[in-house]
Amino acid sequence: MLRELVFAPVAEKLAEVERRIQVKISSRADLISEVTNYVLGGGGKRVRPALLLLSARMCGYDGGERDVDLAVVAEFMHAATLIHDDIIDNAQKRRGRPSAPARWGPHVSVLAGDFLYSHSIQRLVRDGDFQVLKAFADATVAMTEGEILELRWHRNPDVLHQDYLTIITCKTAALFSAACRSGALIAGVDEPRVEALTEFGLNLGIGFQLVDDALDFAASEEMLGKPVGNDLVEGKVTYPLIYVLHQDHSPERDHIRHLLSNGQLQETDVERIRRYVTEGGGVLASVEEARKYLRKARQQLVPFPDTVARRSLEMLVDFIVERKW
Amino acid sequence: MLRELVFAPVAEKLAEVERRIQVKISSRADLISEVTNYVLGGGGKRVRPALLLLSARMCGYDGGERDVDLAVVAEFMHAATLIHDDIIDNAQKRRGRPSAPARWGPHVSVLAGDFLYSHSIQRLVRDGDFQVLKAFADATVAMTEGEILELRWHRNPDVLHQDYLTIITCKTAALFSAACRSGALIAGVDEPRVEALTEFGLNLGIGFQLVDDALDFAASEEMLGKPVGNDLVEGKVTYPLIYVLHQDHSPERDHIRHLLSNGQLQETDVERIRRYVTEGGGVLASVEEARKYLRKARQQLVPFPDTVARRSLEMLVDFIVERKW
Repeated sequence: MLRELVFAPVAEKLAEVERRIQVKISSRADLISEVTNYVLGGGGKRVRPALLLLSARMCGYDGGERDVDLAVVAEFMHAATLIHDDIIDNAQKRRGRPSAPARWGPHVSVLAGDFLYSHSIQRLVRDGDFQVLKAFADATVAMTEGEILELRWHRNPDVLHQDYLTIITCKTAALFSAACRSGALIAGVDEPRVEALTEFGLNLGIGFQLVDDALDFAASEEMLGKPVGNDLVEGKVTYPLIYVLHQDHSPERDHIRHLLSNGQLQETDVERIRRYVTEGGGVLASVEEARKYLRKARQQLVPFPDTVARRSLEMLVDFIVERKW
Repeated sequence: MLRELVFAPVAEKLAEVERRIQVKISSRADLISEVTNYVLGGGGKRVRPALLLLSARMCGYDGGERDVDLAVVAEFMHAATLIHDDIIDNAQKRRGRPSAPARWGPHVSVLAGDFLYSHSIQRLVRDGDFQVLKAFADATVAMTEGEILELRWHRNPDVLHQDYLTIITCKTAALFSAACRSGALIAGVDEPRVEALTEFGLNLGIGFQLVDDALDFAASEEMLGKPVGNDLVEGKVTYPLIYVLHQDHSPERDHIRHLLSNGQLQETDVERIRRYVTEGGGVLASVEEARKYLRKARQQLVPFPDTVARRSLEMLVDFIVERKW
């Protein structure tokens, strides 16, 4: 499997992350552990932990277990936002199974997210590094602001490329970036390298999300683990659609705009928009845009010595576009 | 007004806290600012900010604005938990008005709480004091665990005094304690005084919540800003009821236990339980229990010099029982 090849240099560390993630986090919290284990165990790709571990390794970290500790935090924070996002978006499915709010209701899910998030902060305090703490704290503020912006542009066909890029930078790239930055910080490399990895994570995250949004139009439900066109159903106007809405001036465009602005989309509406986007070149444009960011990400790796970890990160960049994982 | 008399020594600082709380927190977040301003502006008593300011003052803090900065954080964190608690409890009213989730729905409310919480952590990172950060981070973990325990004992008449005390220690007292501890920490007093104020806040918080829970049975809706018997409606079995359920062995007890365990309570059920609790001495027992903790709180103040700030904190302890604010 592709993922295992790319992550091979940190496979043992990732296995340790996995073990720690599966442990019941709090003895006081049976029900919450059930929810968090469900979400954390549901086939997550552990991209953020892997990024942190590979970044640290590439920067020469070999100082113990801080990398594993922080990799667990990165995944906890990711899971916390997944749970709350699924409440906010009213998402019924996640990774091919019912979402946590669909299964346990919003009440328990709010709490499960809060639990993971407050635990993450407590672990960062225990780790005791202000720069790392700041990286993650800034990322969480950004993630919340990304959600807010997304909500503001909900079902709005007037959203611009720039708004969309701000949203995904906040929602996805900020945590990718914090993970990579933290890896560099704990390895103790100089400022330019810390900044290079911060930029690397940011660009990788933007590229990753652009591909994700393209897949939502072009993939199959089996591959996505959630219905195709799911973003549309949740009222999210993403890059592929924004692109076509700005290129096209046919009467179909007005019809699509009208569909978006007016109430819940029916299955036939989703299919119509999907065809509009794929035939109008939206999917290809999104992948093309992703490639720009992925190239920028790859450039950030140039100053680092040619190690196994660096080659692994390069491969990760290259495989983002072709990913089926 | 009582509150103004007690808080007089830090009135100017509190006014500054108030100004900062009302400012729009983020330019990216119109809707969220609307929610957070609504919650923060809804007649909060600012007990936590006042505790932090008075603790700092009593410990001799006069080093600038860190006390105000942290007082704002304490209120933000409190507001964040109020918003999420109202989702978890399905609460329709808060301080005489519709709750945030009742007005904006759970989706926006999840986000508003996350926003306040992540902002709080970011401000603590900016403040740059690991001990203060740890105090608040531990409090937020405790608050989440308190919510979890409360959920576990939802509508369960078998809950013990000890479980209940753990719940309110986590849910209410932990943040009171963190506020007082932070005041001591920024003033730079020695370890025993930091611990004394930590204990002070903890005992005060427990006493405060015991009185609150007694008021839920004994007060009027006008005074509470939410319906009387609201805890019952939300499925919370609190001290006054636990007390009577453990004292009483009449057939009425079995009936009440049955009512609690079986589905939604009707208005007549709530009234029946209310009468059962007040006539069975539950309200008085709760206030008596509160007094024990408040006495312990007052003792923690003994080592401190007799200043206006100390007298203010003592008065606060004394007025908790008689509070109408």
